[in-house]
Amino acid sequence: MDQTLLMLPGPTTVAPRVLRAISKDVVNHRSAIFGEIYTETTELMSDVFKTQNKSYLLTGSGTAAMEASIANIIRPGEKVLNVVGGKFGERLRDIVKAHGGESVELAIEWGDAVKPQEIKEVLDENEDIKAVTVVHNETSTGVAAPIDEIGKLLRNYDALYVADTVSSLGGDRVDVDKDGIDICFTGSQKCLAAPPGMAAITLSDDAWKVIDSVDSNTYYLDLKKYRKSGAGTPPETPYTPSVTLIYGLFEALQVIKEEGLEKRINRHETAAEATRNAAKALGLELFPKEEVSSATVTAIKMPEGVTDKQLRGTMRNEYKVELAGGQDHLKGNIFRIGHMGNITYKELAITFSALGMTLKKLGFDIDMGAGVSAVSESYI
Amino acid sequence: MDQTLLMLPGPTTVAPRVLRAISKDVVNHRSAIFGEIYTETTELMSDVFKTQNKSYLLTGSGTAAMEASIANIIRPGEKVLNVVGGKFGERLRDIVKAHGGESVELAIEWGDAVKPQEIKEVLDENEDIKAVTVVHNETSTGVAAPIDEIGKLLRNYDALYVADTVSSLGGDRVDVDKDGIDICFTGSQKCLAAPPGMAAITLSDDAWKVIDSVDSNTYYLDLKKYRKSGAGTPPETPYTPSVTLIYGLFEALQVIKEEGLEKRINRHETAAEATRNAAKALGLELFPKEEVSSATVTAIKMPEGVTDKQLRGTMRNEYKVELAGGQDHLKGNIFRIGHMGNITYKELAITFSALGMTLKKLGFDIDMGAGVSAVSESYI
Repeated sequence: MDQTLLMLPGPTTVAPRVLRAISKDVVNHRSAIFGEIYTETTELMSDVFKTQNKSYLLTGSGTAAMEASIANIIRPGEKVLNVVGGKFGERLRDIVKAHGGESVELAIEWGDAVKPQEIKEVLDENEDIKAVTVVHNETSTGVAAPIDEIGKLLRNYDALYVADTVSSLGGDRVDVDKDGIDICFTGSQKCLAAPPGMAAITLSDDAWKVIDSVDSNTYYLDLKKYRKSGAGTPPETPYTPSVTLIYGLFEALQVIKEEGLEKRINRHETAAEATRNAAKALGLELFPKEEVSSATVTAIKMPEGVTDKQLRGTMRNEYKVELAGGQDHLKGNIFRIGHMGNITYKELAITFSALGMTLKKLGFDIDMGAGVSAVSESYI
Repeated sequence: MDQTLLMLPGPTTVAPRVLRAISKDVVNHRSAIFGEIYTETTELMSDVFKTQNKSYLLTGSGTAAMEASIANIIRPGEKVLNVVGGKFGERLRDIVKAHGGESVELAIEWGDAVKPQEIKEVLDENEDIKAVTVVHNETSTGVAAPIDEIGKLLRNYDALYVADTVSSLGGDRVDVDKDGIDICFTGSQKCLAAPPGMAAITLSDDAWKVIDSVDSNTYYLDLKKYRKSGAGTPPETPYTPSVTLIYGLFEALQVIKEEGLEKRINRHETAAEATRNAAKALGLELFPKEEVSSATVTAIKMPEGVTDKQLRGTMRNEYKVELAGGQDHLKGNIFRIGHMGNITYKELAITFSALGMTLKKLGFDIDMGAGVSAVSESYI
């Protein structure tokens, strides 16, 4: 009764069967039995990435995978084109700098998506760009970038294509092989709906060629070591992995397999449409341009005269629904509804029922049922 | 009936109450409720470290904490004295090199412990050593270093004292404040008996002074960011932590508090003595010098004519007891019995019962009960 509904862009609600899976006894991570679990989990990850390439598991958050994607491919002074339209684009840029790289920043207005043509122009002006980083789903602004079109463009350039799909994989269209993504990574606690603490990364032959030519700037995240250990007998990780969280990721990937990836993505798109329509029905304004809005998280402008504490505080304390706030300069200016993972009309009915009551309490003259009605229209 | 008993130097068997704790629903890691869990867990960690300094939690294995201890304190070219008497001493040395530092290696014979006088000589020959790394409990050889005596010595030098207590904290004597350790870290899956995947680190004011003067060579493990987020309202981590594993660590630390740290360490020492005596009673030879042998893991020479596969394979497949093998050049030459975490006479009775039968099967003319008898002598 008292349980809080997480409507966050991660961590998302973890299914009971996944929570049961993680409470199994821990096995030796240097044993054949673990080798099997590890191999099956990485193969299921490659299925979700839609790639023939191998995947690797990192014990750490999505940021660990972000750093692995950069620290293994650049030498000090080398150039990376960072598309930056939000907090996670900034993070990839900062990681390039932390490892001595030169970030060529392509700044996009927060709330808008990059156009392939803009990337083309920067690439044509700079011959020596080693990699291009694109955040598929900018969690901070609720914007999705056209990673497929960018992929088509980048086929004509030598630069590696690094795509951050932390908050999209398993919830929005990602096709690593078709889109020619060289390095793609994600976190466990977003659309995959596993507990937080694991990240997965997959790499193309071109990416490995670059990695083999560079001395890694990191030890824990040195991908050459993961490749070597992963090819061992039994397959393993270079350092003690979180066996517990791998149980969880494995089970969450089984859930995805049972649902079917295509169906799952359609379900996310329906939830996103329902969320946008319900927000508008309650008189709220979306933050991003609607045509570039995310399939997994919706950013909404804070209504005039309302503080973050009033809106999210009431949602949390009175109605037990946890929404996300804005980050950095968007703090207090937007709030975000995550609709990733195992989201159906039920969670959205609860969320917009609560949001209707919250807005009414805060003095808005609205039809409290309009949000839930709009949700129903998307699902009927 | 089919459950395998883990007698490894990590991961160790996780108590059912800890396994239940991790299957709780994941909460928002940017909320007051998580802030409380985080704060209480870090305070319990500081209690186990025996320090007034704050502790920080890293989502990652002990190796992540090893890297954090180095990457935040050195600039390229700066010197670190690495005491190397096994695989984990080597790892700290390699991390220094990976971050462009100059490792001054003090090589100790594998199976022996460093003497403070040896460290003194290197320090007196090299004025510009910025830090000294010591592995308290060298998991690969079953040797414990005298971290208290080394602490006394290092009070007379400016170099930071970095102590790796990954496989000792919570099972052997560690007193961060009394021993003047500047940077101390551990992993969740060793003597703390929590699931693998979390690491904890604590830092002195002197350590922070150095960290504040250096640009971190890492992003995910940038400790300045952990300090800043940890001091926030609510306290939090800079990147999504494994809320799930923090539940587990918190519960495992409660178990330690209930047992009492002193009693817990005595229990480990008894288990170590019982293991050594039981191994000798079965005609086996210890690998390290007995006076420097570890309280948490015992390394034993592989009996002549026996392969690792025969001994550990029989133990695993016939008797469902999982032991660890040797690493690197010790592969096949030693095997290791971990007696860390929640180990009592029961687990040792099983282990030495199984080892007696295994040796008999492998053709040794021994009294199969002699091991268990020796265990009993230590516990009566």
